[in-house]
Amino acid sequence: MSLPRATPVREVTSLSVPPDTLVPWPHVADLMGGWPDSLTVGVYDGTGPAPADLSEVRLYVLPYAKGPETVRLAGRMPKLEVVQSLSAGVDALLPHVPPGVTVCNGRGLHDASVAEHVVGLILAAQRELPRWVRDQAEDRWRPHFTRSLAGSRVLLLGYGSIGAAVEARLLPFETTVRRVASRPRPTESVHGVDELPDLLPDTDILVSTLPLTAETTGLLDARLLAALPDDALVVNVGRGGTIDTAALLAETGSGRLRAALDVMDPEPPPPGHPLWSTPNVLITPHVGGGSATFYPRAERLIAEQLRRFAAGEPLLNQVTRPA
Amino acid sequence: MSLPRATPVREVTSLSVPPDTLVPWPHVADLMGGWPDSLTVGVYDGTGPAPADLSEVRLYVLPYAKGPETVRLAGRMPKLEVVQSLSAGVDALLPHVPPGVTVCNGRGLHDASVAEHVVGLILAAQRELPRWVRDQAEDRWRPHFTRSLAGSRVLLLGYGSIGAAVEARLLPFETTVRRVASRPRPTESVHGVDELPDLLPDTDILVSTLPLTAETTGLLDARLLAALPDDALVVNVGRGGTIDTAALLAETGSGRLRAALDVMDPEPPPPGHPLWSTPNVLITPHVGGGSATFYPRAERLIAEQLRRFAAGEPLLNQVTRPA
Repeated sequence: MSLPRATPVREVTSLSVPPDTLVPWPHVADLMGGWPDSLTVGVYDGTGPAPADLSEVRLYVLPYAKGPETVRLAGRMPKLEVVQSLSAGVDALLPHVPPGVTVCNGRGLHDASVAEHVVGLILAAQRELPRWVRDQAEDRWRPHFTRSLAGSRVLLLGYGSIGAAVEARLLPFETTVRRVASRPRPTESVHGVDELPDLLPDTDILVSTLPLTAETTGLLDARLLAALPDDALVVNVGRGGTIDTAALLAETGSGRLRAALDVMDPEPPPPGHPLWSTPNVLITPHVGGGSATFYPRAERLIAEQLRRFAAGEPLLNQVTRPA
Repeated sequence: MSLPRATPVREVTSLSVPPDTLVPWPHVADLMGGWPDSLTVGVYDGTGPAPADLSEVRLYVLPYAKGPETVRLAGRMPKLEVVQSLSAGVDALLPHVPPGVTVCNGRGLHDASVAEHVVGLILAAQRELPRWVRDQAEDRWRPHFTRSLAGSRVLLLGYGSIGAAVEARLLPFETTVRRVASRPRPTESVHGVDELPDLLPDTDILVSTLPLTAETTGLLDARLLAALPDDALVVNVGRGGTIDTAALLAETGSGRLRAALDVMDPEPPPPGHPLWSTPNVLITPHVGGGSATFYPRAERLIAEQLRRFAAGEPLLNQVTRPA
C-alpha cells in the first residue's frame, strides 16, 4: 500500500506534479489505505482558491453543494475524462461538461438522509410538531388529539433508490405503501404515472421523490391535486418544479390539503412569498440530503471510484446523457 | 348475523329493555357484523346525560378519558361483572369498582401512537425541525448540515410493548438498538438497569418508556446523565419523574446534551419554568398516546371483548387487582 500523497488544497500546488485526480476530502485515502499508486491526487473541497494548474486532471470529484464555480472549473481541465458528482440530480451540471466526458452521479448517497427527512416531515405534519414548537416558545401547554401515521395509505411518486428507502422506513409504522414511477414496472408492483387519477383518491400521504425532467415538470397540477381526498398530505423531496405551486397553495390555503416541502418552486421562496405563510404548509430549506450520514457514504463511493479508475474498471453510477 | 341494536345515547332510553352492555361507539357493531344476539348493547360516549336505567348493565366499557363522572357511573350498576378501561393505567379506576368485578385495561392500544411520536421527536431533534419551523415563521432560508438518525446507537430504557414498537420502527433507519429494563431478561437480550453505567457511554439516543415506580423515580440522575457522551439525545415518553429535571436542564443548558420530552416533571411546567426555554430542549404536551390510531384499535379490542363476553370465553387484558 502506498502512503497518502494528497494534501489539503492550500498545499496542492506544492505537489511536484499537477494532480490528475481531484477529490474533496483527504480522509478518502484512509479508506483506501493510501491513494492508488498510479494516481496523483489533489484535494479541493470547494472553499478557498482552486488549484492553479488543472491541466492534468482526468477525474474530478466535485465538491458537494459548493455552487456553480466548482462546476465551471471543469472548463479548465482539457484532459478531463470523468466528472463525479455527489448529488443524485445532475441537471444543472450537464451543460458545463463537454461531450465525451463521463458523468457519474451520487445516486444512493443521499437515500438514508432524504428518507429519514421524509419520515420526519410526515410525522411532524401528522403529529403537529410545528404547533408544539410554537406553543413551547410561548410557554403554552395545549394538548389535543392529532392525526396518526399508523393506518395511513401512502403513495410513493418516484420509486428509485430513495423511494425504496422511504418505503422501508414507513412500513413498520403500520402504513400501506403503493409505488408509482414515470413508467410502470409490473414485476416490481410499480404503477405508471398515467394511473395517478385512479390512485390518488385512496391516498392519505403522497410522497414525491421525482426528478425534474420534461415529463415531470408541473406534473402535479390542479387536476391531480384535486383527486386527493380531503386532508391528504403532500410531501415533496424531489424537485419543486414537479408541482404546480399556485395549485398547491390554493388547496392548502383553503384547508383542504396539507403540504410538507423540502423542495419548492421558487426555491428559495423570496421573503413574503405565500409558500412561507400559507396555512398547512411546512417548509424546510432543501436539507433532505444534508445530514451527517452523507459523508461516510460519499467517501466510500469516491474510494471505490478511484480504485476502479486506477484499475481501468467500469465506474459506478454512470449517467446516460440526453442525446 | 344479527342487525345492530345499539343507538347513540340520546336513544338508549328508547331501547325496549335496559342495556346489559354499554360501549362508547356504535361503530364497534360494524366490526362485528352487528351486535351479538345475546347482548342488548347501549352506546354512551361520555358526553351528554348518561343512560337513565343502568340496572341491567353487566359489561361497561368506559368512555375514553372523559373524567371521573364516567367512572362513578359504575356505582349505579348492581349487576356489573366487567369494567373495560381503554387506558393502560387503571390506578384511578380501581377504588370505584366493587370487589368481584373484573377490570380489564387498554394495554397495547397506545403502542403505535407513542412509538411513532418517539420517532418523530428523534427526527425533529436530529434534523432540527424546530429550527426550520422558526425560520419559516420569519421567511428565512438558512440551510445547513444536520445530524442524522442513520448510524445512531439507540438505548431503549424500558422494553415493554411500547419499547418493542419503538424498536421495530427505528431499525430500518440504520440504527443499532439495545434494550434495558428494570430486571435483565437475557433470553430477550434485555439488560438490567444496573448495567446503565456501562451502556450509556456508547449511547447516542436514550429513549425512556419507563413507568413511574418506587424503583424508577429519579433513576436518571446527574451521575447517569453524565455517563452519556457529548451531544447525546435524551427522549422521554414514559413518566417525567424518572429523570432528575434539574440535572437534565444543567446538561442541556450547557449544550452538552439534548432532550426531547413528551413527559416531564413538573407536568405541565408552569409558565416561566426553564423546561420551556432551556436550549436544546424540545417539549410536547404529553401527546404521545393521543392520536387517531387509538380509535380503531380500541374498537377492535371492544369488539373482541364483546365476542368473548357473549361466548363465555376468558376476556383479554384482565388486571390483577392489588390484595
